[in-house]
Parts: sequence; C-alpha cells; structure tokens
Amino acid sequence: MSKIIKGPSTRELMAQMVQESEHLSINDRRDFLRKGVAAAAGMAATTIAGSSIASEVNKANLPPNEPAWGKQLGHGVVEHPYGSPSKFENHVVRRTVPWLTADSIASISMTPLQDLKGIITPNGLVFERYHGGVPQIPVEEHRLIIHGLVERPIIFTMEDLMRFPSVSEIKFIECPANGGMEWKGAQMEALQFTHGMLSCCEWTGVPLKVLLEEAGVKPEGKWILAEGADGSHMSRSIPIEKALEDTLVVYAQNGEMLRPEQGYPLRLLNPGWEGNTSIKWLRRLEVGDKPWYHREETSKYTDLMPDGRARKFTFVQETNSVITSPCPEKPMVKPGFVEIEGLAWSGRGKIKQVDISFDGGVTWVPAKLKGLVLDKALTRFSLVTKWDGQPWLLQSRSIDETGYVQPTLSQLRKVRGGNSIYHKNSIHTWKVAPTGEVTNVQIT
Amino acid sequence: MSKIIKGPSTRELMAQMVQESEHLSINDRRDFLRKGVAAAAGMAATTIAGSSIASEVNKANLPPNEPAWGKQLGHGVVEHPYGSPSKFENHVVRRTVPWLTADSIASISMTPLQDLKGIITPNGLVFERYHGGVPQIPVEEHRLIIHGLVERPIIFTMEDLMRFPSVSEIKFIECPANGGMEWKGAQMEALQFTHGMLSCCEWTGVPLKVLLEEAGVKPEGKWILAEGADGSHMSRSIPIEKALEDTLVVYAQNGEMLRPEQGYPLRLLNPGWEGNTSIKWLRRLEVGDKPWYHREETSKYTDLMPDGRARKFTFVQETNSVITSPCPEKPMVKPGFVEIEGLAWSGRGKIKQVDISFDGGVTWVPAKLKGLVLDKALTRFSLVTKWDGQPWLLQSRSIDETGYVQPTLSQLRKVRGGNSIYHKNSIHTWKVAPTGEVTNVQIT
Repeated sequence: MSKIIKGPSTRELMAQMVQESEHLSINDRRDFLRKGVAAAAGMAATTIAGSSIASEVNKANLPPNEPAWGKQLGHGVVEHPYGSPSKFENHVVRRTVPWLTADSIASISMTPLQDLKGIITPNGLVFERYHGGVPQIPVEEHRLIIHGLVERPIIFTMEDLMRFPSVSEIKFIECPANGGMEWKGAQMEALQFTHGMLSCCEWTGVPLKVLLEEAGVKPEGKWILAEGADGSHMSRSIPIEKALEDTLVVYAQNGEMLRPEQGYPLRLLNPGWEGNTSIKWLRRLEVGDKPWYHREETSKYTDLMPDGRARKFTFVQETNSVITSPCPEKPMVKPGFVEIEGLAWSGRGKIKQVDISFDGGVTWVPAKLKGLVLDKALTRFSLVTKWDGQPWLLQSRSIDETGYVQPTLSQLRKVRGGNSIYHKNSIHTWKVAPTGEVTNVQIT
Repeated sequence: MSKIIKGPSTRELMAQMVQESEHLSINDRRDFLRKGVAAAAGMAATTIAGSSIASEVNKANLPPNEPAWGKQLGHGVVEHPYGSPSKFENHVVRRTVPWLTADSIASISMTPLQDLKGIITPNGLVFERYHGGVPQIPVEEHRLIIHGLVERPIIFTMEDLMRFPSVSEIKFIECPANGGMEWKGAQMEALQFTHGMLSCCEWTGVPLKVLLEEAGVKPEGKWILAEGADGSHMSRSIPIEKALEDTLVVYAQNGEMLRPEQGYPLRLLNPGWEGNTSIKWLRRLEVGDKPWYHREETSKYTDLMPDGRARKFTFVQETNSVITSPCPEKPMVKPGFVEIEGLAWSGRGKIKQVDISFDGGVTWVPAKLKGLVLDKALTRFSLVTKWDGQPWLLQSRSIDETGYVQPTLSQLRKVRGGNSIYHKNSIHTWKVAPTGEVTNVQIT
C-alpha cells in the first residue's frame, strides 16, 4: 500500500506547469498552439475535401437574427431537477405498432433511430419489449438468488451486488424480431419500424462469472436459467460458456440506475446476443445440467425452418447495418452535397468495414467508420457524396471482424426459408426518388 | 463509385456462416465457446482475486423472494413515450446551492456524481450554468452568423448546419468554478457540491474549422468572439488556434438533440477548456484580430493573483480527480472488501495514471483505470482493497499524458494565492471515520 509512483515528482511537474501556464504570454500561447494545429489540419482536410454546403445557403430569404428570446430572461434552475428534452423535440419518442401485439402489456416500442446521432441511445429512447408490463420494484426489496448445481446457494441484495467491483461497457441490445415484419415482404415505411428494436448504452454491473465463482458452479453445471421478477417471469436458458465469457449482471445504463422498462433495478446483459436473453428485473439464476426449454425458447425465439423444424438457441445477432440518413423519415433535403450515414453492429465483435451501394447492390463503395469502433456496439458509418436528383437504390453492407459479410435477403431466404420472424439481418434497401422522397423497397 | 470490396465474396462467407451456425449441434457450440472462454478466464481472474463479498452476505435475515410485483401485471408501452427514471430514484437529481447565487436565473445546478456509474452523464443530470435563464428556441427559427474578418459572411440555419458531415466525440465539460468554494477552506459536505459542475457526454456536431473554411478567415483573423442567443448574450473570445484545432459546433448530446439548458439547438464545445467558453444557444461567431475583453472574461473568469493582477485567458482545465465512492453521500457500508472508485480528467488529453492515498498523501498506491480511457473525457479509476474500520485520509492524484501531476492545495496556493475562485484542481481529501462516515477535510 506504499508504492511510490515513478517519474518526476509532483513538485517538479508543478513547477513545470507553473512555468508553462502562469507566465506564458498570449503570443507564446499562440505559438505553442500553432504547432499542434499544423498536424491536426492535415488530418481534418480529408474529411471536408470538396464540401461547400455553405455556398448553397440561400442568404436572401433569411430573417434578421434578432429573435425574441434574446430580449428576455429564460427559466431558472430550480424548476427542473431532472431534465427533459426541448418541447420542440417532442416528436422524437419511442413508437409502437398498434396491430403488432394483442395488448400493450406484452408489447414493443421502438427507438427513433432516424433522429439519433453518435452511438449512445439516450435512456428515454431505448426500445422496450416486455411480456407482462413494467413492474415497479423498490430497490431495497429486490433480491437475486443463485441456486441449483452450485456449492453455496446465495441470495444477494442490491447493496451486496453494488459492492462488487463494477465494469462499464458500451454494448448494443437488439431484439431478434427487429425487421421480422419484413421476412415475408411487409413494407414498413419508417426506419423506426424496420430497425428500431435496437439501442446502445454504456451498461454498468458485475461480470456474472464473478458471482458464479462466489456460488461455486458444480462440474455438472452446464446451463443457467435466468428468470425475471415481473409478472411474466420471462426466462431463458444460457450456456455456461457465455455466462463465464462476458455476461454481465447490470444495474445502470448511461451513468444512472436502469430505467424501469429496462429492468430496474437489475438485468442480465448478454453482449451481442438476442435481447430476450438479457433477462430484465432479474431475480433468479439457476444452474443446471441442460437447457430448460421454457416457453420463450420453444414456442417463441426459435427460427422455423422450411422443413418445419425449429432452429433453436440461435443466440448471436449476426452483423447487420442500415442507412439512417436518408431514410423514409429523413428524405433528401435538396440537391448537392450529402452525408450518407448509418449504423452497423455485430454480435460477434467489432465492425471491420461497411460498404454502400447506390444501385441496389451491383456496385459498392467503402464508407468511413466514424468515431468509436467498439466490440458489440453500434458503429456509425459515413460517406460524403453529391446528389443531383438521380434515383438511387441505397444499401449498406457490413463486415465484422470475423469476416462475416451481411447477406442479401435471397441468400438468407435460401437458407432459412420464409417462415421465420427472427434474425433477419439482410441488406436493406431505401429507394431515393428524384423528388428526394425515400421509400422502403425489397431487393432480393 | 464502383469499387468492389476485397476478400471472400458474400456468397462464400454466407455459406461459411450457414455451416457454422445452422448445423452446429449444441455440443459443437459448447466446444467452440469453451476455447474462447479459456483465454478470457485468465484475464478476469486478476480482477476478482481475493474478493469474497458474497461470503459476507447475511442469509438469515432475508425475506422470501416472492414479491408482490411478480404476481401482477405492470404498465404497458403507451403510457411513457419518452422515458423517465424509476420513482425509487427520485433523489438522484441535479442540486443547487441556494446561497451561492443571487437568483435562479443566473445560477448553477450540479451533477450527482456520487450516484453516477461509468463515464457517460445522462442528459437529465448534466450540470447547468447560465447567466440569463434558459431560453426556449424553436429550432427552425435559430440562426448562426459567421462574420467579421472573413471573406464571405454566412448565416446558417440549423438545417444547413446539420447537412455538414458530423463528428461525435465523448468529452467532459467542467465549470472552472468547480470546487471554487473550497479555495478559502469552505467545507461542502457533499461530493455533488465539491465537484458536481462536471459532466461527460457524447457530443455531435460540426468542426468549427469546417465552418470557418466556408467563410474564409482573413490572414489578420486571430480571435473569435462566440455569443449566445439567450437574454444574457453570454460571450467569450476564443483564440483562432483552438477554433482550428478541435472546437466543435454541436447540436446533439448522448444521441439526441441538445437539452434546452445545454444550449438547444446549438452550442460551442471547446474540448478540455473551461465550460463557459463553450457558449450555449450559439448565435454569432465574429472573427477579429484581438480578444474583445467582454464582461465575462474580465470581471469574471479571470484568476485574481496574490499581487492583485488578474490572470486572464486561463482556458485549460488542468488534470483533476476525485474519489466518488466512498464520499460523504456514500459512506462505507460495512467492514470488508471495498472498491474505491473515482473519476479523473484532463483538459490536455488522456489520463495516464491515478494514484490513491489512504494516509493523506504520505504514501500512494496506483489505481486501475477502468473501461474507456479517452482524450479529454472522464476516466474512471478503481482500487479494490479491504477496510476493517481503520480511519483513512483518502486522496486521489491524477497524472495526464503530458506528465502533469495534480497538485496539492498548498502547491496551488503557493502559486495562485487565496483570492481565486476558478481552476482549483488540487488533490481532494475524504476523511473516513471508524463508523464509516465520510467527511470533507482539507489537507494543505
């Protein structure tokens, strides 16, 4: 507990800091900064080459920039202890498809991907899926039990769990039914409905491996049943290998405690696996020697193959991608320079490459990956080009670090047939009309 | 536009995928997964070595795990199109110090760092600081003008700005007055008040460099005045070197449009610089040949030195750190294993190292940096140890990639005296009592 850090002492470095910042004149500072800028400038130039959007700005029709809100005071700090979006953004909400489920208690709401930037999904917009409504669970009354084929069954309080060393990881969660309405060719005229069962947060919790070591898994323990505390007691069987590899027991998302609809106060997180395995309101982990074949992994969440057999335990969300701008909700604004943007993700690791096609998959151009490229997280891609009103059949195709290439719909159908609801990760097509309108079309 | 991607064809890789996942038996899958687990297990073991928190769990006093919420249905999807935290977390809010400012219109609210996990601050909890209240600005009526020493003055609409290729970056923002109440020895008995003018988001916008190139800065253009559209018309002078290096004009935070209190619909972001330079509700950028010496950079936001002179344009937030667990709001739970956790940040780049002292700075132990370590972003550090009720004087000391070491208060006072309000980045001390209580003490 008394190792001294290496390198210059605090005192020496402090003296250096003082010299650098206290007695630096503005001109010195400028010279210092200029050196750094020279290097940065070369890099940035490639990003903006050829772009001259401002030259297209119509200056004549703009009102004078003397708005009313610059002449009065706004509201103060005490009125909103927990903040909300601007009232001018109240169209940016999760949406549901009323005919999709029998009632709202066992239903879905979808993330407005068309309005999102970067890779983080704000907590208020993370898609929802539940089977018995959202329970209201007082944090101090919640318990997690680990039992079954273990040496020491344990019941944890939330306080116990939050004492373990925590990890925080940015990971996507996707419902395997994302795009499922399109297997048979349904045309949902909105990105929010074709791909919106997809979100990405920074999750914080404890590796399940750590908790299992506390309980001591017996040698014959090969599967884990995870069960929710909600009225549906949603449950899934998880192979022990995944549990020991990277499964987390999480209590926070994007810095704060889980939202009620995301499992408050505790959920499982199986990175890269279909969302329904990441059991919410997690109350029970039972270790067994084989899977349980509960309702949700037999009648649901299996893939019905052409020969009538069900493909089971298809956990991984294979690589997928979609163009988010333009899309049906965000048509082309006007001819000229345009940034084609989108999201790519893979349940097997990092995204390696994304290509874009303007002609429905005949030819491809590599896009740029923007910002952070993280394991099993949403990754944003971009291609700056020019649009002069020509029709486009816009597609994106992702390739993950395993080399897996996102398939076409016909390639996927050839293997899986047309009975499936789940795991439709095929290349998606937006048709861009000369008017700028964007519609959802299927190219097989 | 028609470059064909290299490597195996989609068809070949599709076939490979099918072979791997369609016809893999559960046992094959298990073997496949096991290979990956063996490597991962070795890594994870170091994290949890010696930890046996579960063995400390008192099983006898736990109620049976058959809660009421497991026997009824919860609420459905339509009731909350934009989500909110659990009602059981309604104590996790921004807070203000009523005596600190004359009224709530020109005031501050602080982020509850003691409750945050990971590095992302959720938008509803990002600290606030404004000088004339929060204006309500309709996005389609907002304008940004770039004028002064430029070849082509331009007025941008938000639509214009959002057509430029965007970048998304995770960066902290800190008010230079963070901790300022402690310069003279005031003891704020809460982490939220000692360090809560600090947040970290994924910001999305356009590099200012790109917009300046559109306008064409004249050779004599050396400074930029940034001005807000709010009633206070808050303004700061920014050296052109920073503007060309990494300043962003941002419209989104954590995936969604800026919150009203964060500048909706547009703000400046000067990564690593004092928060007040990141002008909110940004309406005007004027290029000039010298700084403007406006009110906020003369009467405020300068550092009053012992000799009565004001140290000006001290833009950079030098490296700083604080232990967030334990802290006054999160005392020690019980004797036994404990994870000491905290946040470190630097306006000059990445965090290189954080050390922890248990004896008020006499001896130091290196902490582990957890999760993402990003340029000018909050970085989380951790040290797992054991506490048996002994008193501690807990400190953290950060070192950034430039080698700058966070100073002690006496080192800082020796240079800056005791008149300052701003830029107090000295080592902070929490006193841990045998009862577990944590208080704020100053060790000079």
